Amino acid sequence: MVKKRQILVIGNNTKGCLPNHEKIAYEVGVEIAKSGSVLICGGLGGVMTAAAHGAKDANGLTVGIIPQNDPSEANEFCDIVIPTGMGLARDFLNALSADGVIIVGGGSGTLSETCAAYMHKKPMVAIRNLNSSVDPYIDGYLDHRENIKIVGADTPQEAVQKILELLSP
Amino acid sequence: MVKKRQILVIGNNTKGCLPNHEKIAYEVGVEIAKSGSVLICGGLGGVMTAAAHGAKDANGLTVGIIPQNDPSEANEFCDIVIPTGMGLARDFLNALSADGVIIVGGGSGTLSETCAAYMHKKPMVAIRNLNSSVDPYIDGYLDHRENIKIVGADTPQEAVQKILELLSP
Amino acid sequence: MVKKRQILVIGNNTKGCLPNHEKIAYEVGVEIAKSGSVLICGGLGGVMTAAAHGAKDANGLTVGIIPQNDPSEANEFCDIVIPTGMGLARDFLNALSADGVIIVGGGSGTLSETCAAYMHKKPMVAIRNLNSSVDPYIDGYLDHRENIKIVGADTPQEAVQKILELLSP
Amino acid sequence: MVKKRQILVIGNNTKGCLPNHEKIAYEVGVEIAKSGSVLICGGLGGVMTAAAHGAKDANGLTVGIIPQNDPSEANEFCDIVIPTGMGLARDFLNALSADGVIIVGGGSGTLSETCAAYMHKKPMVAIRNLNSSVDPYIDGYLDHRENIKIVGADTPQEAVQKILELLSP
Repeated sequence: MVKKRQILVIGNNTKGCLPNHEKIAYEVGVEIAKSGSVLICGGLGGVMTAAAHGAKDANGLTVGIIPQNDPSEANEFCDIVIPTGMGLARDFLNALSADGVIIVGGGSGTLSETCAAYMHKKPMVAIRNLNSSVDPYIDGYLDHRENIKIVGADTPQEAVQKILELLSP
Repeated sequence: MVKKRQILVIGNNTKGCLPNHEKIAYEVGVEIAKSGSVLICGGLGGVMTAAAHGAKDANGLTVGIIPQNDPSEANEFCDIVIPTGMGLARDFLNALSADGVIIVGGGSGTLSETCAAYMHKKPMVAIRNLNSSVDPYIDGYLDHRENIKIVGADTPQEAVQKILELLSP
Repeated sequence: MVKKRQILVIGNNTKGCLPNHEKIAYEVGVEIAKSGSVLICGGLGGVMTAAAHGAKDANGLTVGIIPQNDPSEANEFCDIVIPTGMGLARDFLNALSADGVIIVGGGSGTLSETCAAYMHKKPMVAIRNLNSSVDPYIDGYLDHRENIKIVGADTPQEAVQKILELLSP
Repeated sequence: MVKKRQILVIGNNTKGCLPNHEKIAYEVGVEIAKSGSVLICGGLGGVMTAAAHGAKDANGLTVGIIPQNDPSEANEFCDIVIPTGMGLARDFLNALSADGVIIVGGGSGTLSETCAAYMHKKPMVAIRNLNSSVDPYIDGYLDHRENIKIVGADTPQEAVQKILELLSP
């Protein structure tokens, strides 16, 4: 059995999620599914819903890892729901469940997930110029003691292509 | 999109897992897959490997939620791996990820998952007479203040049939 | 600096906590404080409140590790509050924070903490005959594969004395 | 019983912790203890050890919340040790255990804790100009959707004074 890659998409929940973020996230989801990878997301609204929606429209497999106890809190595009009951600390589970991460805008929660993924040395690609809390670190180092860049990309297609390159053996 | 049921199978890891436990767990996995449900397990050895193996042999979808950070610690029959990095406290995530639970033998870890599932009021079926730490509560109440039974079953087929009945609307 | 022992007291929350459980838990708290140990508890009602109350009345130091985000959910007898925000999975933190555990009655939550402590090989003493979900394992093995007993005791004084003996080098 | 304030100090572990970070953290610890507050820290090296050391030298009470299972991994200046066994996700527990946070330098782990505290709306003060991953947000907003500043300070004394002001009713 060949294990499929698991790619995490992170960004704003409903609050603060602009229409262009959703459009990009949807396209990222489509491309992840087309690559045969599994889409992992935080299972809630905004970027999470859009990315899962895109992946499902392209016949992909989707997983939502949510803060709550109740699986019905997940968006309707998650095939598998992991209700963690551990609140926002589930950001660490998202990061650990990722072979690679794509960042589409986002605020403090997205930056939290970025830090978690960075500490666990996961390859990361971020869409540039989305007014995100992650912006100061795109195309640079989140931690100057580490030699790991957050790679910038301008389009969903470029983001998925770059993460797949970073993940290829 | 109709959400598939997620059924958790729990029991001993490699240590203490007898051949008949593995045989039963394998059959439970087969039946879960045949019912169109997703198999959730703890992703490690013994009963977890056997159940996932059965589900894959019957073309099912499988998820392993493991204590470690590193997804390669999961057994080879997990389509999706959720590395929690939170040690044995992942027992709570297994329980929360379940619509229903099937118990195949097991010791202190299995009893921990049983308690977690019980507190979250998940329907549970346990195979009888496997010398398990859960035995004192099969066909009875784990907590006398609650009106929730752990239903006993004698065969893998009966266990899956009973959990599906408990889960049907 | 000599590190003080941390002793966890577990048992029912308000629901199902009988007056004699509270009386015993209070005395256990008193004895823990008198021994110069720190009392750890789950920070909520019933046995948790009673044990912390006893420890404070004997000028001890108390810690409450609670499931919620909000520290004000803890009972008033906790000097230090650790709000975990991770729901009932905090049972594992209680167990890990213990050098030793005293069990005063209890249902599914108490049994969950007992399993967590057992898996981490913490010494445990349980008060006998309190109609607890832990009863089947008192003076015996929770997991027949392990060589660890849950030691029974008949009084609060005996319970604290026995746990201190188990913890002495 | 009047509950003491719990103040979290965060910054680099041994790796990347410069001597001036340790000196500042030690003084922050002293001031926290002198204010009658409890010092919370991540229980490991670098800034965490220095802050706890300072608090103990000023007869304060200290708590270390560590990623590991084994309490002996904590530094020697922690009166209470909470071994979480949940890896770096313990950053969320640190944040939740804080009434207020003081940031002394730090990299990706410190930024993770900062995000966790920010999402839970904890008052935060950061020492300026320590080449920290938090620097882009000092005296500004970590998330432009929130109206919460990370307040800058130039000295340990100013940092503790400012956090106490933010915490006073």
